[in-house]
Amino acid sequence: MSKIILSGVKPTGRPHIGNYFGAMKQFVDLQNSEPEAIKYFFVADYHALNLIQNAEEMRQHSRDIVLDFLAIGLDPNKSIIFKQSDILEHTELCWIFDAITTVPYLKRAHAYKDAVAKGGEEIINVGTFNYPMLMAADILLYDTDLVPVGKDQKQHVEFARDTAEKFNRVFDSETFKLPEPYILPNVEIVPGTDGQKMSKSYKNTIPLFADDEEIEKIVMGIVTDSTGEKPQNVYNIHKIILSANNASDVVQDKLQKIYEENKGKYKNLKEILIEDLKNFIRPLREKRAELAKDEELVNNILKVGREKAGPVATEKMKQIKKAIGVI
Amino acid sequence: MSKIILSGVKPTGRPHIGNYFGAMKQFVDLQNSEPEAIKYFFVADYHALNLIQNAEEMRQHSRDIVLDFLAIGLDPNKSIIFKQSDILEHTELCWIFDAITTVPYLKRAHAYKDAVAKGGEEIINVGTFNYPMLMAADILLYDTDLVPVGKDQKQHVEFARDTAEKFNRVFDSETFKLPEPYILPNVEIVPGTDGQKMSKSYKNTIPLFADDEEIEKIVMGIVTDSTGEKPQNVYNIHKIILSANNASDVVQDKLQKIYEENKGKYKNLKEILIEDLKNFIRPLREKRAELAKDEELVNNILKVGREKAGPVATEKMKQIKKAIGVI
Repeated sequence: MSKIILSGVKPTGRPHIGNYFGAMKQFVDLQNSEPEAIKYFFVADYHALNLIQNAEEMRQHSRDIVLDFLAIGLDPNKSIIFKQSDILEHTELCWIFDAITTVPYLKRAHAYKDAVAKGGEEIINVGTFNYPMLMAADILLYDTDLVPVGKDQKQHVEFARDTAEKFNRVFDSETFKLPEPYILPNVEIVPGTDGQKMSKSYKNTIPLFADDEEIEKIVMGIVTDSTGEKPQNVYNIHKIILSANNASDVVQDKLQKIYEENKGKYKNLKEILIEDLKNFIRPLREKRAELAKDEELVNNILKVGREKAGPVATEKMKQIKKAIGVI
Repeated sequence: MSKIILSGVKPTGRPHIGNYFGAMKQFVDLQNSEPEAIKYFFVADYHALNLIQNAEEMRQHSRDIVLDFLAIGLDPNKSIIFKQSDILEHTELCWIFDAITTVPYLKRAHAYKDAVAKGGEEIINVGTFNYPMLMAADILLYDTDLVPVGKDQKQHVEFARDTAEKFNRVFDSETFKLPEPYILPNVEIVPGTDGQKMSKSYKNTIPLFADDEEIEKIVMGIVTDSTGEKPQNVYNIHKIILSANNASDVVQDKLQKIYEENKGKYKNLKEILIEDLKNFIRPLREKRAELAKDEELVNNILKVGREKAGPVATEKMKQIKKAIGVI
């Protein structure tokens, strides 16, 4: 039996190179390193609904994220790319899991705790509270074996495993397979322009599809400490950019050469980073622009994905419904 | 435009005469008194999943409740009778509502508060916590105008109204009509065999489709106070049974005559109640037995209901999905 790999991505706006090196690139690597596996990558729009409550924005972001992924190499001939809201069984299974899950259990979710810590329970919406059950449904509906996650996201898969076990026990069945987390190798914590982790909320990002002018402006604004040996933030970003297309020893050699030749010349070092960033981003940006010209491309790809994933979900749901006795 | 009336019933087991006079009968009355309205009556099996977590029981109860309703006069030619789990859009819309509803808002639900009061939050499942959103989805998916409810269930409709208003406001649309509660007339609080409200949890019920022997045994066990003028519990049950097929003044006259002729003769009074109960129940029970012979009847009726309700739900969901931007 082929291994089944599944991951979802929330369409929450323009990706930055932190998203790329932190997750997106790994999906493409996984797609290409596991040719025998069945791979599902879905647009998690019903998860995003907790954040994006504007139709135009939702539509735009959902289209954008598919273009983003195609531009970096996700291939509809190798992976099944679909949209969560196209497959009604996700939310249906979420409800079924709600019925066998206690309120205190869900309160243990990191995301819920974080949200309470930030704004208090007053402002948390039920979808944020309930999202681990939708995520469990996403995973279990496709008999997923492996869920690619970063180190800090292992809990998602644990919730899915717990829920699968609980369902199998309560309904005395072997309906669900227990998924395993697949901890992504080579996940890099990408530093932002201020040295903190790159994150939209810190406003320290470099957009993955930035144009040349944007790149110049952002790199020139990287915070540097003029008393240091070298501009550490510039160095760290440079290192990760070079790692996209070079082995780590090559990266090391290149950087050593650059930093020896330009000791103390922060402006030069930034200019070299600008060039390397432009060279890294340009082909991705151009490919994306090319893809975006085809107005129907995203819809067509999602249609194909729906036609592949839909029957799998429907078939699984039949098994689930028999187990609970509603058919 | 025809008025749209909708109500759901949880398939939670054998109904008793308290259920009949408290709600079931009113649905049939409503069906017949509102010939112009579009009437949906659905088996709320996904609500029941919070209570019934056994496939055989769920299957049996779901079939039984349809037979119960057909036996008392619900008519698939006049009403649309369907099963909640047959229409995936209910749970889908529930998720959408989850995304615009806060946790503290849901905690205001009576059913949640009652459950916390009884067993503490520890044992409450998420489905019990989240059920007002599934109920709002049930109601709003069909552009319902009127929701028949008992006096103590008005909150259900208030949650649906609030949620409709919130959705329309958040997504700047007029997607949902605001439903109104339709407070059922003539709803009787039916007393049980011990004088408390008839309820399965008090073990004081008279099953609606009881056989003769059962009726005799139960009535003979009605708690009476031998010091009183008359056996009040016997009297109260008798009054409600006679009211099924008689105007209230006729009931009054009949009972007065019976109680004058049998003053103090509790055994006689119980025997007369037994006869009247048998006469009331027999035709219902016989009709139900006749209907139950057709193994396929319930499936066929639910299939017809699904074929009528399904396209309405799908069409409405298109409008909702456009409003939130997932299509």
